[in-house]
Amino acid sequence: MPSYKAPTDELDFVLFELFDAESLWSSMAPFAGVNRELARAVLEAAAKLAEQEFFPLNQTGDAEGPRWDDGHVHTPPGFRQAYEAFTRGGWLGIAGEQEYGGQGMPKMLTVAWEEMFYAANTGLFLYTTLTAGACILLAAHASEDIKRMCLPRLYEGRWSATMDLTESQAGSDLGIITTKAEPRGDGSFAVTGSKMFITSGEHDLTENILHLVLAKLPDAPPGSRGISLFLVPKFLINDDGTLGERNGVVSGSIEQKMGIRGSATSVMNYDGATGYLIGEENRGLAPMFTMMNYERLSIGIQGLGIAEVAYQNARDYARKRLQGRAPGERPERAQSPADPIIVHPDVRRMLLTQKAYNEACRAFAAYVGSQLDLARHGDEAGRATAADRVALLTPVAKAFLSDRGFENCVLAQQVLGGHGYVREWGLEQYVRDARIAQIYEGTNGIQSMDLIERKVLRDGGRSLDAFCNEMRSDLDGVKGTMKDAAIAAIDLLTSVTATLSKKSKKDPALPGASAVDYMDLFGHVILGWLWVRIVEVEKRRGEGGASPSDEKQRTAEFYFAKLLPKIDSLARSIGAGSDSVMQLPADRF
Amino acid sequence: MPSYKAPTDELDFVLFELFDAESLWSSMAPFAGVNRELARAVLEAAAKLAEQEFFPLNQTGDAEGPRWDDGHVHTPPGFRQAYEAFTRGGWLGIAGEQEYGGQGMPKMLTVAWEEMFYAANTGLFLYTTLTAGACILLAAHASEDIKRMCLPRLYEGRWSATMDLTESQAGSDLGIITTKAEPRGDGSFAVTGSKMFITSGEHDLTENILHLVLAKLPDAPPGSRGISLFLVPKFLINDDGTLGERNGVVSGSIEQKMGIRGSATSVMNYDGATGYLIGEENRGLAPMFTMMNYERLSIGIQGLGIAEVAYQNARDYARKRLQGRAPGERPERAQSPADPIIVHPDVRRMLLTQKAYNEACRAFAAYVGSQLDLARHGDEAGRATAADRVALLTPVAKAFLSDRGFENCVLAQQVLGGHGYVREWGLEQYVRDARIAQIYEGTNGIQSMDLIERKVLRDGGRSLDAFCNEMRSDLDGVKGTMKDAAIAAIDLLTSVTATLSKKSKKDPALPGASAVDYMDLFGHVILGWLWVRIVEVEKRRGEGGASPSDEKQRTAEFYFAKLLPKIDSLARSIGAGSDSVMQLPADRF
Repeated sequence: MPSYKAPTDELDFVLFELFDAESLWSSMAPFAGVNRELARAVLEAAAKLAEQEFFPLNQTGDAEGPRWDDGHVHTPPGFRQAYEAFTRGGWLGIAGEQEYGGQGMPKMLTVAWEEMFYAANTGLFLYTTLTAGACILLAAHASEDIKRMCLPRLYEGRWSATMDLTESQAGSDLGIITTKAEPRGDGSFAVTGSKMFITSGEHDLTENILHLVLAKLPDAPPGSRGISLFLVPKFLINDDGTLGERNGVVSGSIEQKMGIRGSATSVMNYDGATGYLIGEENRGLAPMFTMMNYERLSIGIQGLGIAEVAYQNARDYARKRLQGRAPGERPERAQSPADPIIVHPDVRRMLLTQKAYNEACRAFAAYVGSQLDLARHGDEAGRATAADRVALLTPVAKAFLSDRGFENCVLAQQVLGGHGYVREWGLEQYVRDARIAQIYEGTNGIQSMDLIERKVLRDGGRSLDAFCNEMRSDLDGVKGTMKDAAIAAIDLLTSVTATLSKKSKKDPALPGASAVDYMDLFGHVILGWLWVRIVEVEKRRGEGGASPSDEKQRTAEFYFAKLLPKIDSLARSIGAGSDSVMQLPADRF
Repeated sequence: MPSYKAPTDELDFVLFELFDAESLWSSMAPFAGVNRELARAVLEAAAKLAEQEFFPLNQTGDAEGPRWDDGHVHTPPGFRQAYEAFTRGGWLGIAGEQEYGGQGMPKMLTVAWEEMFYAANTGLFLYTTLTAGACILLAAHASEDIKRMCLPRLYEGRWSATMDLTESQAGSDLGIITTKAEPRGDGSFAVTGSKMFITSGEHDLTENILHLVLAKLPDAPPGSRGISLFLVPKFLINDDGTLGERNGVVSGSIEQKMGIRGSATSVMNYDGATGYLIGEENRGLAPMFTMMNYERLSIGIQGLGIAEVAYQNARDYARKRLQGRAPGERPERAQSPADPIIVHPDVRRMLLTQKAYNEACRAFAAYVGSQLDLARHGDEAGRATAADRVALLTPVAKAFLSDRGFENCVLAQQVLGGHGYVREWGLEQYVRDARIAQIYEGTNGIQSMDLIERKVLRDGGRSLDAFCNEMRSDLDGVKGTMKDAAIAAIDLLTSVTATLSKKSKKDPALPGASAVDYMDLFGHVILGWLWVRIVEVEKRRGEGGASPSDEKQRTAEFYFAKLLPKIDSLARSIGAGSDSVMQLPADRF
């Protein structure tokens, strides 16, 4: 049986020592009251709930899964109680608008505690995450009536929400959806069509489910400029907030999936269901992206959270499992039958890879979280810069963290050898659960194209340059080989970008052909910057006598010796251009 | 539902055009009668059986799995009939000793057709592969009596065999097994202990099961120099070959695994079971490695086979799935709602990665197969060289092919987006099934250490140099940038090896710390050599007017542009040494 201990101290380190969240929050009016002590209490409460209520249901939720019965979905045993414990704790409203019953806490803090619930039980936590995203969307784009009606109930967790984009013929390409919305003349619309891969589309945890559905009006222009967004509740809502009749939306089936098997993924069939327009007609993608950007960071954190619990179990196994002898002579160990496998260089390589990625990815996620807060509550200049940063870094955070999440789970599984492949030890579930994060909320290929095409090339690299300059100036005054390597990596990113920008004008296939390599390069560069920063903070702690360890220094050395070198090959691959990708005719594959 | 078409033409190309197997076989007496026509008939028969009998049971075998019932194991529905079709076809004896009823065909041909069965249904095919390995072991190490008794029945598939090494406390480290064998004074031994992770340890497909069990004699020296090998049949065998009483060995349970769920993996409990010594006392590892080396190449081919079927399904999906628009202007497509995703550079990147690895890995496996034949049936000088080559390349073939196998399945799954994550489309099963190949028969970390420590450094790099020189001289006379890149890659391997060899004398942790990077580098270098060779063969075909395609040329260009560059980072990581791997204390992970 696996175990999980939420990394509260690590998160505390990242928030308050690495990024000085206390000063940051005190600079933003709504967060003035959130100090380290309060945040620490939040993290500890989350840790307790995640470890004690969520984690024990992770393997059982996977094994038993939800059950579909004529349109009804029964969640696995225990999920209801754990969901209720979560909502009782107020977690759905913790970052919500205070005006509507939320607690108005920083997103940067949410980013921290979300990791714990993903680690403890992704299948269960997914019943809450889309509600959180929907709250952000509704707060930004819904009418006052809808906000007053829905937000308090969503924050309480009495209602939940979904995101209905995909149709069988339309996934990455939303321009070709066929779900229709006909105006009824009374301000409402009749929504008809079928959506698939709808996370928490139907379940028994809440009184009502609000579906946020993309559909086309009768006179909509073709493509993505003709998509509108509708709120379609499972039960119609009376003016007093009580529930009326069942609306014309029903779960057609649930998917048999590789992982996140505790989560119910529905086909949702709409048959003239009553819906309410959110935002403007034909402009539905923009509000949906408010939600998507939040969800994308969250999905990166899913990868990180699962990678962390996988790492913990691999590490514990490596400390206990006796097998073989350490390299070199160790006469003092002749009494034991074998050494713990954590002495073996290749096992250490696997563990250090996980540790070096996870810790820096955690810092990266917190940084993006801080930019989400600044984009909303910073001063005027700061808001614009932070919004740029969020736009630039969200696709990297989603794709890079979920790629590392999956790979780290595979490495953790490998540490356990055969035991990693059997269900009992839990590692194989982490591999299955982490895999989806690379696929949903926009595949990592889509994220990478968004990054290079929309976020980097479209503005001539200005956002990127600003961020690179921030990283460079952040390392000003630091000395040493790691700092030099981090700066060289930033320079490499800049020069690769300049070349891509120039060549792409004549070669429209180049951005797509380079996209995933570029995202991977970008992520590694960011982690180089963060590792130097982390080591500096550890040094400062050491000078104060608080921490005699050089754990971060050692881990950073591993990152620079063994992981950052990947950027050489990535740069070479990007430099090789698009010809070799584009020339083979489709019928010769 | 996935589909599968065995790559018969590709295999024919590799055997007869790339490696001129016809001349090779005609140089070895036992294979003089095996020409291209016969081999082609063998491949076509295998293709038919794999496609028609094995493949339709792949998803059902995974879903239903074997059932354990008080020591009995019932294989999934249909497996028995498919197994019987396989044995009726004589496939178990096809490469077997003619003296004992085998057909004496080349291993190089076996390597080719094995791919098809792994692709079609790994869970089912595993019920046969250990029998094939056991036949090789028994032919080389068993007494004449045992050979006469067992080999014909194993070749017929009436009996099957297993390999019983692992115990709960002893996996990678066989020196610490505790299973005991007490001599009974009548030439037999009483074997007592418990083995785990035993593939096909118990099932209902054969009349008898022969377990090849590692155990310790009462006076055995400690560690791996005190291990003996025993044949322990499920049913005792009378002198006339009929079956006697049930022996004292029983399946204690079967594992719930991530994948290969059609295959039954047992805990096997031995309670004074009657066993017969194979080979010499305390020297049981050597014969076991005869079997292991064969199995290791086979497991590499498992990775390749599953990656091939995954690729085919991803490619077919990418041709049909309409989503988004190709980069650049394509006015002629304005009529269709969207383009097939195979036009998108990132989708092409994913497919070409799979194609470039699979095709060259197929050539690599065939090359190792040819060396297995030459090591046995070549002339005297040729035998020694080929045996060296087999020893050197087996760990690379196992680890590199299974690593690429898994990664390619993950890429194929990614091409399908959300459809790749649900069971119906089959891709998620391929990911789960391919994963085990990186773990069993010695993890890929163990393979990599075997490669660098035993196969490269122990003889001062002589085997490696000989192989590198063979690759170099094979490319003599070829011109062009790909040839130059392939030679530069070989040179890099040579220089990395020289540095490692020198530094390892003072740094015992260095080989282990570099092992997996080194194996990965080695594999990429071999594929570089093979891609140049493949392109040359395609060119020669083109000159004859037989093939106007430059499919191989295009795929090779992709390999050199996008995949071979990985060796730069691997060399840099290896060059960074072992310090960063070894310094973090175990309690700070």
